[in-house]
Amino acid sequence: MQKLFELMKALPHDIDCGIISNSVNIKYFTKFSLTDGLLIVTHDDAYLLTDFRYYEMAKMRVKDISVICSKDLNADLKNIFKTNSCSRVAIESSNVVVKTFESYKERFKAINFITDSRFDDIILNLRMIKTDYEIKKIEQAQEITELAFDHILNFISKDKTELDIARELNAFILNNSDGLSFDTIVVSGSNSSLPHGTPSNKLIQNGDLITMDFGAIVDGYHSDMTRTVCFGEMSSEKQEIYNIVLSGQKLALDSVKEGIVCCDLDSLVRKYFRKFGFDSEFGHSLGHGVGLDIHEKPSLSPRGNVELKKGMVVTIEPGIYLSGKFGVRIEDMILVTENGYKNFTKCSKNLICI
Amino acid sequence: MQKLFELMKALPHDIDCGIISNSVNIKYFTKFSLTDGLLIVTHDDAYLLTDFRYYEMAKMRVKDISVICSKDLNADLKNIFKTNSCSRVAIESSNVVVKTFESYKERFKAINFITDSRFDDIILNLRMIKTDYEIKKIEQAQEITELAFDHILNFISKDKTELDIARELNAFILNNSDGLSFDTIVVSGSNSSLPHGTPSNKLIQNGDLITMDFGAIVDGYHSDMTRTVCFGEMSSEKQEIYNIVLSGQKLALDSVKEGIVCCDLDSLVRKYFRKFGFDSEFGHSLGHGVGLDIHEKPSLSPRGNVELKKGMVVTIEPGIYLSGKFGVRIEDMILVTENGYKNFTKCSKNLICI
Repeated sequence: MQKLFELMKALPHDIDCGIISNSVNIKYFTKFSLTDGLLIVTHDDAYLLTDFRYYEMAKMRVKDISVICSKDLNADLKNIFKTNSCSRVAIESSNVVVKTFESYKERFKAINFITDSRFDDIILNLRMIKTDYEIKKIEQAQEITELAFDHILNFISKDKTELDIARELNAFILNNSDGLSFDTIVVSGSNSSLPHGTPSNKLIQNGDLITMDFGAIVDGYHSDMTRTVCFGEMSSEKQEIYNIVLSGQKLALDSVKEGIVCCDLDSLVRKYFRKFGFDSEFGHSLGHGVGLDIHEKPSLSPRGNVELKKGMVVTIEPGIYLSGKFGVRIEDMILVTENGYKNFTKCSKNLICI
Repeated sequence: MQKLFELMKALPHDIDCGIISNSVNIKYFTKFSLTDGLLIVTHDDAYLLTDFRYYEMAKMRVKDISVICSKDLNADLKNIFKTNSCSRVAIESSNVVVKTFESYKERFKAINFITDSRFDDIILNLRMIKTDYEIKKIEQAQEITELAFDHILNFISKDKTELDIARELNAFILNNSDGLSFDTIVVSGSNSSLPHGTPSNKLIQNGDLITMDFGAIVDGYHSDMTRTVCFGEMSSEKQEIYNIVLSGQKLALDSVKEGIVCCDLDSLVRKYFRKFGFDSEFGHSLGHGVGLDIHEKPSLSPRGNVELKKGMVVTIEPGIYLSGKFGVRIEDMILVTENGYKNFTKCSKNLICI
């Protein structure tokens, strides 16, 4: 519950109480998964409102929080507001939909709701710095992901389609984890020039680059990795682009440490690619935070103004995409440390030819 | 695009324009999948705003709609409002989050935003009545789901856990479809008394009832089925409860036709169970609509006031759960027809003993 206490401490003085409705955030602070429920936080107290489906389990597992079996969320909210003399209540404005908010306003006329982004921001900023528990889960998810990668290297052959490969990856990940981090990407040949293409019925052919982007979930925590491999004969152009992407990634990794600003890291790689004439062929961000969501803060993009801090888990995933020809992306997931990083992604980045 | 024209026609006179941001709704009206984009509908026109990632594909696939490659959604929205003299603009209030809405209000000061639920309701009501295309997709999803059921019956044995069975079902479904309809439920023995329990490491034991609730996705369309089977020797009590649930389901199915109100169908089964003393052991609704979402309108619950109409696809899934002992649920997915229904779920409902 350490992070919950940090949240309570970080609650600004002009906010009496915050309502957390995003189930990922509820899981973050309570380690408890539910689809419906509210976590209410004041400066001194916290309440978990849930229903009969989750109550017994929540009561057993969630410590330091009053767990309430709610038959009427609004009535229970009213009680909490009254008990704690709350008049200024923050909501997660990036999670609550207009319809729900309108009903809050209608129901709680005396409450002044705070909809600026401060409450969301406090939560997202707490979530950026991973605890040891979280790091362990992410590490486990990545271990499974790499087993899947080993497995798929033996599976790929010329009678297989992108979809065959994606399905085999999915089956392996699902058999060994709690779920897929996201829809697995397997793109080959000219399809690999689409950064976020979806697997098709295209057969793998001699000379294809195959880009695979995939991950597993363990106890809600995600992993994320991309490898580009070659099938059959490799042209010198492909090898060259692969080497540039790999060097770009190494450049970024070597610069990771506490204090560097995300956009500067992104810019480092972008400038490096520009030297080779690839100005617009790197059409996405360098990376993103990973945790209970597959994409979370910080964003390692040209506009990312967050300073890297010890305990952040981020991806470093540069790519070069030559429209209609082919693409290369290499993605590792790392833990930021004081003077550098720890790479969760252990497997080789030398170009693998199958 | 038939449904899009119906939406334009159904737009009330005091709404000049509606903004659709829910990607499931965008897919519904355009048959095009994207993660970011807006579909704008006026009385005479429709626009799909998307970015460079989707533009080429959208342009190719989406007919009868102006597809715009947007670099600045707000600027493009402004243009559309101006071109169409829109001053009263409806949003999907059950989808737009407060943060986005605040930014709309800030950006478009002259616009009167309509946040009542009418616009959402029109869309959800249109989605209730399935087109032939949708029915075909749902049928395909259910066919795969039943192949998975056949497969799993041969897989279950006494050295398997609930999780083993769930993972095997998942792998089969993923190998043959576009995805899982929802997190597969496999609960056995006393765990089966939890309507929405999650698969555990519990081994299947002699005399267990095993409840499996699962489904597949085809082109975005979901299927949903539940079967309860017996492993080993069956007690007469379990057989008896199974028969009551099955008769309750038959009662509901026999009453399905155009015009019956959802809550009346639900009540029919509830009253029937009451005869046997099971008042509170059926702790969920009788069923729900299925389509691009796994749960959509209509709700076949005690409060469901929608009349069934030809073309609706709903589940009929009564259950009896004896706390700490066992539970039985049987779920079919059906198409409502003028005088009855067509059952998508073909496989037998006689109690299967493995």
